[in-house]
This record gives sequence, structure tokens and C-alpha cells, in this order.
Amino acid sequence: MKEFFPSVPVVEYEGCYSTNPFAYKFYNADQIVAGKSMRQHLRFALCYGKAVCADGADAFGQAVADRSFGAATQAGCARDRACAAMELMHKLGLSYYAFADRDLAPEADTLRESNARLDEIGEYLISLQQVYAVRPLRVSADLTAHPRYRGGAATACGADVFVFAAAQVKKALELAARMGAASFQIDGGREGTGFLPVCNDALERENLARFLRLTAEHAQKIGFDGELCVRPGPPGAALHPYWTDGAEALAFLRQYQLDGTYRINLPGGAADLTGLRMVGEAGRLHTIDAAAQGSGAADEAAMTVLELLRLGGFQTGGFLLDTAPRRVSSTPEDIFLTYIMLMDTYALGLLLAQRILFDGRLEQFRRDRYASFGYGVGKAITEGRMTMEQLELYALEKGEPAVASGRQEYLDNMLRALMMKGI
Amino acid sequence: MKEFFPSVPVVEYEGCYSTNPFAYKFYNADQIVAGKSMRQHLRFALCYGKAVCADGADAFGQAVADRSFGAATQAGCARDRACAAMELMHKLGLSYYAFADRDLAPEADTLRESNARLDEIGEYLISLQQVYAVRPLRVSADLTAHPRYRGGAATACGADVFVFAAAQVKKALELAARMGAASFQIDGGREGTGFLPVCNDALERENLARFLRLTAEHAQKIGFDGELCVRPGPPGAALHPYWTDGAEALAFLRQYQLDGTYRINLPGGAADLTGLRMVGEAGRLHTIDAAAQGSGAADEAAMTVLELLRLGGFQTGGFLLDTAPRRVSSTPEDIFLTYIMLMDTYALGLLLAQRILFDGRLEQFRRDRYASFGYGVGKAITEGRMTMEQLELYALEKGEPAVASGRQEYLDNMLRALMMKGI
Amino acid sequence: MKEFFPSVPVVEYEGCYSTNPFAYKFYNADQIVAGKSMRQHLRFALCYGKAVCADGADAFGQAVADRSFGAATQAGCARDRACAAMELMHKLGLSYYAFADRDLAPEADTLRESNARLDEIGEYLISLQQVYAVRPLRVSADLTAHPRYRGGAATACGADVFVFAAAQVKKALELAARMGAASFQIDGGREGTGFLPVCNDALERENLARFLRLTAEHAQKIGFDGELCVRPGPPGAALHPYWTDGAEALAFLRQYQLDGTYRINLPGGAADLTGLRMVGEAGRLHTIDAAAQGSGAADEAAMTVLELLRLGGFQTGGFLLDTAPRRVSSTPEDIFLTYIMLMDTYALGLLLAQRILFDGRLEQFRRDRYASFGYGVGKAITEGRMTMEQLELYALEKGEPAVASGRQEYLDNMLRALMMKGI
Amino acid sequence: MKEFFPSVPVVEYEGCYSTNPFAYKFYNADQIVAGKSMRQHLRFALCYGKAVCADGADAFGQAVADRSFGAATQAGCARDRACAAMELMHKLGLSYYAFADRDLAPEADTLRESNARLDEIGEYLISLQQVYAVRPLRVSADLTAHPRYRGGAATACGADVFVFAAAQVKKALELAARMGAASFQIDGGREGTGFLPVCNDALERENLARFLRLTAEHAQKIGFDGELCVRPGPPGAALHPYWTDGAEALAFLRQYQLDGTYRINLPGGAADLTGLRMVGEAGRLHTIDAAAQGSGAADEAAMTVLELLRLGGFQTGGFLLDTAPRRVSSTPEDIFLTYIMLMDTYALGLLLAQRILFDGRLEQFRRDRYASFGYGVGKAITEGRMTMEQLELYALEKGEPAVASGRQEYLDNMLRALMMKGI
Repeated sequence: MKEFFPSVPVVEYEGCYSTNPFAYKFYNADQIVAGKSMRQHLRFALCYGKAVCADGADAFGQAVADRSFGAATQAGCARDRACAAMELMHKLGLSYYAFADRDLAPEADTLRESNARLDEIGEYLISLQQVYAVRPLRVSADLTAHPRYRGGAATACGADVFVFAAAQVKKALELAARMGAASFQIDGGREGTGFLPVCNDALERENLARFLRLTAEHAQKIGFDGELCVRPGPPGAALHPYWTDGAEALAFLRQYQLDGTYRINLPGGAADLTGLRMVGEAGRLHTIDAAAQGSGAADEAAMTVLELLRLGGFQTGGFLLDTAPRRVSSTPEDIFLTYIMLMDTYALGLLLAQRILFDGRLEQFRRDRYASFGYGVGKAITEGRMTMEQLELYALEKGEPAVASGRQEYLDNMLRALMMKGI
Repeated sequence: MKEFFPSVPVVEYEGCYSTNPFAYKFYNADQIVAGKSMRQHLRFALCYGKAVCADGADAFGQAVADRSFGAATQAGCARDRACAAMELMHKLGLSYYAFADRDLAPEADTLRESNARLDEIGEYLISLQQVYAVRPLRVSADLTAHPRYRGGAATACGADVFVFAAAQVKKALELAARMGAASFQIDGGREGTGFLPVCNDALERENLARFLRLTAEHAQKIGFDGELCVRPGPPGAALHPYWTDGAEALAFLRQYQLDGTYRINLPGGAADLTGLRMVGEAGRLHTIDAAAQGSGAADEAAMTVLELLRLGGFQTGGFLLDTAPRRVSSTPEDIFLTYIMLMDTYALGLLLAQRILFDGRLEQFRRDRYASFGYGVGKAITEGRMTMEQLELYALEKGEPAVASGRQEYLDNMLRALMMKGI
Repeated sequence: MKEFFPSVPVVEYEGCYSTNPFAYKFYNADQIVAGKSMRQHLRFALCYGKAVCADGADAFGQAVADRSFGAATQAGCARDRACAAMELMHKLGLSYYAFADRDLAPEADTLRESNARLDEIGEYLISLQQVYAVRPLRVSADLTAHPRYRGGAATACGADVFVFAAAQVKKALELAARMGAASFQIDGGREGTGFLPVCNDALERENLARFLRLTAEHAQKIGFDGELCVRPGPPGAALHPYWTDGAEALAFLRQYQLDGTYRINLPGGAADLTGLRMVGEAGRLHTIDAAAQGSGAADEAAMTVLELLRLGGFQTGGFLLDTAPRRVSSTPEDIFLTYIMLMDTYALGLLLAQRILFDGRLEQFRRDRYASFGYGVGKAITEGRMTMEQLELYALEKGEPAVASGRQEYLDNMLRALMMKGI
Repeated sequence: MKEFFPSVPVVEYEGCYSTNPFAYKFYNADQIVAGKSMRQHLRFALCYGKAVCADGADAFGQAVADRSFGAATQAGCARDRACAAMELMHKLGLSYYAFADRDLAPEADTLRESNARLDEIGEYLISLQQVYAVRPLRVSADLTAHPRYRGGAATACGADVFVFAAAQVKKALELAARMGAASFQIDGGREGTGFLPVCNDALERENLARFLRLTAEHAQKIGFDGELCVRPGPPGAALHPYWTDGAEALAFLRQYQLDGTYRINLPGGAADLTGLRMVGEAGRLHTIDAAAQGSGAADEAAMTVLELLRLGGFQTGGFLLDTAPRRVSSTPEDIFLTYIMLMDTYALGLLLAQRILFDGRLEQFRRDRYASFGYGVGKAITEGRMTMEQLELYALEKGEPAVASGRQEYLDNMLRALMMKGI
């Protein structure tokens, strides 16, 4: 089989003193941390679209990278991308990947033909999965890019668009089942309102819920045994998205009694730590997009992984490597460096999070903060044994409550020292 | 009775050709618009705190205005403020006002004494209400300003703070009942998480719901016949507020089965039109803070009032004049000009909204947009009669869906012409 | 000649009561306002790229509109776009347009061939200019879109990129001269720093100044008699742009003694009113991008035109219609509606601005604000006749200065009434 | 002398394994790094106002901390604050502090009396300086907080305000001279425009320049031998400030030929790295506000100190500890923890920056990036030996320029490993 990245070897752990760019400095897959290997904790998945399709075009400029991998035909390009993705996973030591249907093969002139293309490349990928011992962590249908979806898919104002989207989801879901995908995802994508005065958002919301129900029914019918998920965002694709973040997606699922059926994939790394906390405590977390980059990325990743460890870790989900090289970085090597950086960031986050847990002071601090709800009037409140009259009496007698310092600076100092001790 | 604003006469409607600064250009209280008078539609309420307490201090500088109205004692100052507020309402032609307990009288050394102060000024206001024929549109307890609440009131990490806040709410609620207030409000205020890793936000959320339940029980016990409300924000008071906007407040109420008990007061004028739509369609709207200012304020107000008219208007709520003069504007006259501007803005919004409804094209456009859900496959979808298989079959046969232009520019042009025709 | 927009007639003024979407509601080209016709004041120019090239692709999705106008070859498409642009100008009643070299014809494999393409379509446009009586208000070289410029053109870290960009500018400048363009513009585009620790921004800045000097020398050599301009932004194209706004561009020109040679084109409508003021008072304004859209657009446009009138209006520049239809608006009619909206917005702005000037109160207010610098100690300060000692003596004797109210609310009320009187 | 912080000992370096909250983990004053001690590199200065005056009030709430230190009179409180500041400096090991005149003593009813208060506390501080071996790194006049300055001081629209501000500056400057201050600073404060249509910003700008010139003349007259500085911001104090950041302040100084007289104090830690670079390379840097906080603070500080080391370090300036404890942190201990955190952050930044320089790869990368400007056509360009014609010829022959990858991911990986090796 053709090698697409001959200049890059299999990437191995060499520790943080290594100056080899193609080595992990922190990600040591088999290293045991908090009872499990790093690999088991982090469950990284390659994002197929970002890794082997994204060409670096932006709002102001053209593609900087050729992602046809030299192929002359559509089918050839699709197969080459599949092989390139497998090579990337192999060399990076990944066991999972994630894709949308149109990442595998672009749409043809008719849905029938698009489906045929998808079947063909799907079968090819299934055979490659055998060889490389990988499988999809999540599969979705791209209901964002095509102009027919410019005003939404499940929430489009025209019924035919809803229908077309449903047909596309059906096909992608069936492929996901055949490929043994751990989850199937409905994207926020363009689902949202535009100019509100002419929107019937009540109908649109209902339709979105109907779309989720139809998908769930079909998943059951075909015996899909992965998880069903929704994913907020991305920001900017819709003017007022229905799911801007994890909290909003959770509220939507609850409102339509879909929170027993769907889990949530969280975008944005640790940016939305509140969402992670809420979704996690509701037992609805599936996957997190690993996107922490630039200044402060390790601190962010540490906080994300700390939450994750408190929640008991991923079940069937994982961290999706949802990043492409920056536009100024145009070589194949840059693809590897992008993922090495991202994986190292979360590996480092894991090491730091475990150190914080092992140290114990932060956990103790949290328990102590709320101690007053464990006895006396606090306990009575949480057990619903107090009335307003009783609370007033208590307050009149007790006088001004003592309010302890929040000690944020103490926590900052403590965490800083823990994090910078060196790995 | 002393006149506090002798330089300002009773403000009357003179139309938009008037150059008298102390005249309404658009607000004509008794003018019938869409079947009701402007007064009945808009139901403006003076914000007591902003009008007669706010002294213009900001993050970088000291007070610019003396709001003691010359009084030498605390009780005297409280009474003078009350009279000044009545004079403002009288001269502006307002029938409602809104306040937080500590706007009426600052806290004393003990809760007992603070309560006594509140009782005293409360009785005084009740007598003034008789004279001026006004009443509170909403009353709240200030659980934001005092340092004891710096980490939240109902969601504080110390039980004694929760208790103190409950006692304060009890007192304010009882006063609201005596004063015939149309609503009692629990503010978002400082309720939110800080540094997430040490927060038990699950407990905090439960406590917030408990606080709302306790308040509702007490309201029933004392026979308070106004509405109970929550209000998101204000932004900046908590790091991660539990209620950042209307949608989030609604989701909270639903999660804790409080959406039959509490209504929602919306901050920020039309800034959160999506929230207004959601809250309104859920039948949970009470009051809107009228805050549209500066460039585009009339357009914004028109969109807000348009939503409001579609929802059938306010029930017992209204527009709260939630604005103080800017810091550079320091005279008593500036207070009047602030409210004249705000009332004119929403009056103008009402005139424009009615014109849009009367014209009918926007409403027709909205109906047409979703017409395809009224028959054929669209109807079948909304009635739950389609499976994924059927939808796929339909899509395969029908082919690429026709997607109509969104015609945003057409709408823009139409609305612009309608709005600028002149009043 | 083929008609590309047969469904749209020549757009004429019908006043704000018209319900014809393809009519101007406010723009009445020959109406005299403040001593000149609207046409002479506003000098609108069609943005060739936005009008006949932009296909509606965004960061998340594919093109929604075909802008090949049905042509099968590159040259045919180029000519069809040119004709479509002329038809647009004719039907909209425009006399000016603006373009970048690559809008006219895409790059070929070699610079020589790209230049040949440019010459060919350039000659074609020159002949069309005769027929339609139009000419370019501004011409530029596209140094943004091609991947070679991803790290800047004049400020690229590789000398060959600088050279290539210079060659491209030379060609575009020569074409601009042949076409009788009113100005030639160097764009901010990708000029800026990325990751600062590896940037030599001192060298990059020098190179940018050198680039401007080389361009100016060549303009003189070939006898280009239009203006030379720079244009800040667009935001997002470079991480830290050298010219983010008008003020920064002006400071750059001053630092390198180029402020006698270059003028400034201002992006963003009135968003940067401060920049407009500074650039205008320095006598360096050329063109403004007319981009005010949505809520508050008329207010914004009024403030922009007010500044413009105070500065004496455009010399050889004008308002560039720098907007494309929104992505949801995909028909050819939407292109017309986009420009009708934009032109009406600034026409309305002109009417309102003139009304404000005619009313006189705002101008009087401004003069009165600074009156104290016209006599006594204020005059002595501005004439440099006071020392710190003298000022201290004065302050000690005079005591606390009287500070008048800023009366912002008075101004708001006054402007609102003036603006909403109806046209 | 009374001890104000008896619970906190002298803070000493104990290394990053220490769990003592009142110990430095990274700041080891006498440790030699890159040829100088940490103390000499970082030159930390206590911000008097933030440390012993700020009471934690915010836009929504009252003071959380009593900063009268128990004193009953104004003069007693002033002296207690002075002693508390000295104790803080002593225990933190600081040699410098910074203050505004009104931090030392609040304004009295008349300027004469305010001056007397300032003289009195000034003399007291001079005597304490002897005892504690400290001196002011910078002194300023508070032209922000008093309502008379609400529309600016040097740029107020009333001449009397300008005069009063000048008198206040004169007094503060004379005190700075007596106290041996390393610099005197004119703040951006409220200097900026408000509602632009009524602003004469040309006059205001001239007045601001005049104010700087008057100050410089007086400094020379009284033989003040420190530096004169300006400082942008703070954001929010003026609607459109004249100096929003370092670059803008530098452009202002250049425009008025004041860049030989004034240096610039940079706010915001590393937030404005571009401003730091520009101001530094222009030789106009004096002081940096050390404000990096929270996630990513160490990375930020490292980048700031890296720039600083490349520029040759501070001359007479230093890092100002421009931070107060957060509002939730209310104890005296929290003050210490705030500064320990901040000093450790920049000490860590210094260690990391030196490691990056010692490693050498980043520096080499930067040199290599621009290598093409050191020979051939690149050199010819920088030496001004090329015309557009020559450049075109070269481009036509050379063909498409080779553009190297920006290798941002390589740099990220490299810096990450360097930073996380452990201290």
C-alpha cells in the first residue's frame, strides 16, 4: 500500500526532554495513570474531515494544501484519503476515528448516486478497519455544507429539505451500524433561527425533536448498538443556533423527553467547563472535542480532564482531535505536529489532573466549602424541613452570617505550584 | 409637599415637531393603537433605584449626583426619595414603579432594625400610593449588593447566608403583599458559580430551586395575589450565572417543575429577542426591562413590541424603565430626559410595530415560509405519520429539494420603508 | 448584448410609500440636498467582486449561487461577469465601480499568462466603460486570497513573495491608469504579524513602507493621475494586522512620511466614526465602505454622512457598496435588493444629516461646549501663554470648577425627534 | 510600630514543592538568571491604591474589606495605610511602590487643603522610605475618579477643568521629585471622546499635547530627574479613549513630537504583546503592569519577559503589581497571596524565557525566517536598489515563489516541551 507520509515515522513517546518533533513528549499510551492506561483514559479519535479533507481555505483565501493525495478520480481520491487516514492513525497510535458522510465522498448529482458512492467507500473502509484495528468513535451526516441546508436541515422552513436530510441521516446511520461505530451524531450545524420576525421557531423546534425521534426509531429498527448523540454549534453557522452549548442541548433534550435517548458531544475543549459539568452530572456526556490550543492550553486541558476523572471518565466516547493545521502550516508534517501537540496537551492535562486529585487539597477544599449544609440548619434546609418563618426566626437570632474568604488566590497559588513542579 | 424638580413641568405629548425637551414626541398615553391605549399597551414602571438612588459612581470614579435630596437623616432621606419618586411618576404620567427592599432604606446593623426601617418607609409609601394612584409593578429583595452575598444568596456555599437571604425575602414579600404589588421577583444577582473546580453546582442548583419553592409556599400562605417571577442576570455580577438569559431561566424552571409557579422578567430590551419569543410562547413572560438606547433603539423597540403584540401583550407586567442618566449627565433635568427618551422609544416602537402588523406583508411572509408543512409530506411529518424509510423513498424520487431564497434583503427594504415613512 | 437580470427593470425613485421592491424609497439621484445632488454627494460605486463574483460560500458551507453566468470558458465567464456588472450599474444608476485584479480574471499558471488575461479583460472593460459611461473609483491588486500571500505580501517573511506582489501591483496599477481609475489602493489584507516571538515586525513594517514607496514611484513614472490609497483590515485576515483601523493606518503613513502621498479608504461604514473624524481632519479621506446593515443602519449612516458633510464631502472618492447578498438570499433579484437597501440607507442618512445641520441645534451645542477655550484662561492655554505656576495660582483662587451636564439625553431626544419626523 | 498583618511572616523562597501558602515557589530574589538577579530583572513595585485602598466594591455591590485599618481620622487612616503598605513591601521583599496623589489622602474641600493633606502624608512617607529603603517607581495624579473629571481632565470641554488638573499635576509632580520617584505618569484615565458629533477632538488632542508639554516644562524647571510617562487606558473609563493601547500612545507622542520626552507604561501584562514590541523597539518602554492571571498566566508572562529580555530589560521601570484580591477574597492574607501569585508568575516567566533563549531554537527560527532579505533580491529591496520594473522582470522569470510552511505547530510543540520540563 502506498505510503502517503513517508517523511514521518511511527510517533513514539520520548519524554519532555526530547527534541525530536515527531515524538510524544507527554503522551505515553501504556503508562498507567489513576488506574488506567493513558490510552484508555483519553480514547483519542482522529477527525477524518479535518485530517485528510480540510484544505486550508478561509473566508479570505484559497486552499493552501492539496488533499486529493494525487488521485485523478473522485473514487480514487476517496480511497487515497481513506488510506492516508489509516496511515495517520497507525503512525499516531490511534484506535478511533470520526467522520461525516460527505467527508468520505462528495455528493453526486442524485441522492441515489451519492448513496452508491458512500456504500463503495464505506465497504473499502470496513476492510481497512480490519487491517488497522480501528473503528469509528462517531459518525454523522453532513447537514451543514450543502446550500440546500443553508437555512437548516431538520429546522428548514421547507418540508422537502427535512425529508432530504432524513434520507441522508438514514443512510449514514446504516453505514455507521455496519462499521461498528460507537456513536451516531446529529449536528447542531445550521439548525437555528435567522431573522426572528419571520421565523416559526416553535414549529422548527418541534421538527428538530421529531427528527431526533425518527432517527432514534430507525436506529432501534436496524439494531444500531452505538450511542445516539447531539452536538451543539458550531458558532457562526446559524445566526441563533438552537444548541449553542452543552447546557442548551441538555435543556432541549429534557424538554422533549429525549434525554434518555441522546447523549451530548461537547465542542470546544474546556471552554465550556460549565456545560461539561452539567452534561456530565446528568449522565449524558459522550465525547469532547479536544481543541485546547495556544497559551493556557495545558491548564485548560487539566481542568477538563479533572472534571472527566471526577465523572468517572468516558464510557464509549473519547476525545475527538477536532483540529486542522493552521493555514500558514501547509506541509504533511504539519498534520502530524498538530495532532502530536493536541494529544500531548491532553496527556499533560491528565498527568496534572491526577496530581491534583492525588494531592487532595482541592477536593478537601470543595468538601469544606459546603460543610454547613451537612448539619444543623443547612441540613434541615436540604431536607426540606424549614419554612420561611423558621428561617426568619433563625436569622433574627443568629445575626449577620460569617462569610469565609473565597481564597481564590490560595487556590491559584496551590494549583500553579502543583502544575509547574515538572513532569 | 416639597417639590424636588421645580424646573420640570408635567410632561405632555406635543408630537415630533416639538422642540420642547420636556415633552413627549411619540408617547401619547391615551392614543388608541391596535385597540388599546398606549398606556395600556406599554404599562411603564419607574425603576426606583435607578431614578432616585443611583448616584453615577462607576468602576473608576465617585458619585456625580447627590441623591439624598438634601435630607440629613437616613429616615428623612428615605422619605424624600419616596416623594421624589412620586413626583417623577406624577410628572411623567406613570402608574407603576418597581423597587428592591434596600432601595427604600439601607440596611441597618441588625436584621431586626433593617426590617423596622423597611416597615416604616413601606407604610409611608403606602400612604403616598393612595395620593398618587400608583402601585408597584414589581418588588424584590436586594440579594446582590451586600458583601455577605458576594458568592451568591440562595446559592451561597454557607447555609447561614441562605437563611439570611430567605429572611430578607420573607420580609420583602410581605411588604409587597401589603403594597398591592403586581409581582415579586427573585433576582439572578450573584447566583452562579465562581471557580468551577471547587463548586458543588448540583447542590447550589438544588438550593436555588428550594429557595424558589420556599418563597412560593410563603406567598401562598400569606395570600400574596401577585405573580412570582425570576430575572436573569445582570451580566458581570456572577462569573458563571445560573440564569444568563430568558431561555436559561425557562429551562431551569422547567427542570425543577417551577414553570407553573414562576414567570420571567426579561432584561435588556430587545437584545434577547430569542429569549422573549421562547418565554412568551411558553406563557411565562411578565416584565421586560426597557433598555434600548442609542443608535438603532427605535428599530430594536419596534421588534420587541412586535413580538409582544403577537403574544397578546402584557398581562400584569409591563415595561420597566431600567435606566439611569449617563454619568456625564448630572442634573435633575437629565433624569426626566432619560425617561422621556426611553418612553418615546417604546411608544415609537409600538407605532411602528402596529404599522408592520397593519401592513400585513411580514405576517404573510412568515405564513408562506412554512406553508409546505401544511399539506402533503410536510403535514405527514408534523403529524408523525412518516418513517425514515418512507422519507428516504420520497427523497429518492423527488430529487433535489427546491430551496427558496430567504429574501432577507427584501424584508429589510420593506421594513425600512415602513419604519421611515414618518409618524 | 445578453441581459443577465431580465426580471429586474431599471430601478427608479418612487418614494417611501412605494411597495415596489425594485424602487428606491429614499435615493433620488438628482434631488438637491445641501447644494448638491444626491448623486454628487454619495458617489456610490459597485463592488465588482461582491456583486458578480461572490458565490455565498462561508466557513461552513459551499457556494449557493452560480456566478459563472452560464459561461463555459474562463474568458467567457470573465466577459459575462463584466457585462453583468455593467447591467447592474446601468439598472442601479451607478457611475462608478471598484475591483481587484483577480476579480476580473482568476490567476493562470504563470504570472505572464495571468497578466495576459488581465490585459484582455481590461481592454474589454475599457470598451464597456465607453458604452455605459462608468469608470473605476478604485482598483487594487488582490494580495490576500492566493496561498502565497498567506503570511502577508509586502510583509511576507520571504523576499520572493514581496517581489511577486510588487509585480502584481505594477500590472494592476498600469491597468488602473489605462482605465482612468480615480484611485489605486494597497489593501491591509494579510499584512500583519502572526506568532510574535518569531516575527521581525520592524523589518516587516519597513518593507510595507518600501512597498508603498515603490508603488508611488511607479505611479508617478507612468503618470497615474488618480489618488493612491491604503485600506485597513479586513479583520480576521491577519492575526495582528498592521492597519486595523483608520487611526492606525494614518499613524503608519505619518511615521513613514507617506501621509502626503497616500489617502485612506475606510472600511465598516460608520462603525469607526472616530477613524473617519481623524482621517478626515487630517485631509486624508478617500473612500468609505458603505456597510451599515440591519438595526440602526439609518442612524449610523446619518452620523457617517454628517461627518462627511462637515468635512466638505468626498473629493474623488465615494461610498463603496461593499456588500454581497446574505447566504440565504440566492437569487439574482437579491443582488439588486442588497444594493437598493444600501443606497437607500445612505440616502436616508444624507437627508437626516442635512436636517440636523439645517436645524442647527447640534452645531450650536458643539460650539457652546468649548466656548471657554475662546476667552480668558482657556484662550491663554490654547495660545501657550500659561505656565504650571500660573495655572496653579488660578486654580487655587477660582476653586472647584463648575462642570456642566453633558446633556447626552437631551441630545438623544433631539436627534430622535429630528430623525423620526418622517421624510 | 503597629503590625497590620501579624498573621503573615516575611515571605521567603521555598521552591515549588513547598506547600506553605506564604512562601515564594518560583521568585528567588537573589537567584542569578541570565546575568542578573531576579530582583534586578523584575523590579516589582507595589501598587499602593490596589494594595491598601481598594475595598472590593464593584458595579453591583458594596465594599467587602475595611481599608481604614482601624483609624478614626482621615490623617490617621492615611498614616496607617502608609505603614501597612510599608509592611507589605517589607514582608514581600519589594523595593518599589507606585501611587496616585489621591491614594495617599482623599481630596478635601479646597485644593489648598488637599495640597496640605498631600504634603503632610508625603513627608511622612519620605521618612518611612528611609526606614524601609524603598522608593516610588511611579507617581501620578488621579485625574479619573473625581466627578469634575467625568468628561476628561486635560481634554475636558471646560477650560477650568484643564486648569484644575494642571494644578493637581504640578503638586503631585513636585511631591514625586521630593520623594525621589523614578517616574511621573500622566494617565489616559477619562481622556477620550464621548458622543462624537458634539466633540471637538482636534482641540482636545491639542490640549492633551499641551498638558504634556506644560508638565514636561515644569519637570525641567524643578529639576525632576525621573522619567515622564504616559499610560493608556483603563478600558471603560472613556467611551473612545485617546490612548487605548501602547501603539496608539506611541503614535500620539510621535505626532506631537513628544516621543523624545515621554516614555510609555504598558497596561495589561502580555495582553498587548504587539504594543510592547512596538514601544520597546522605539526605545520608549518604562513600566509594565503585571496583570497575567488565571489560566495561561505563566505562558503569557514567559512571552512578556522574553520580549523584555530581547529589549535589554527595564531601565528605570519595572513590573507594577497592578492587582487587588478578587472580591470573594476578603482577608488580609488574601492580599499577600495575590502578590505572591503575581510575583511567582513573572518569576516563572523569567525562568521559562531564559530557558527559551538558552535553548536557542526559537531565536534561530526567527533569523532563518527572514534570511532571504539578507542577500540577493531581498537585500536589494531593503537597500532601496530595486524599481517596480526590475521586480516585475525578476518575478516573471523566477515564477511562483516557494513559500515555506509557517510551522506554527512545530513551534507550539517545542515551546510546550521547554516550558513543561519542570523548574
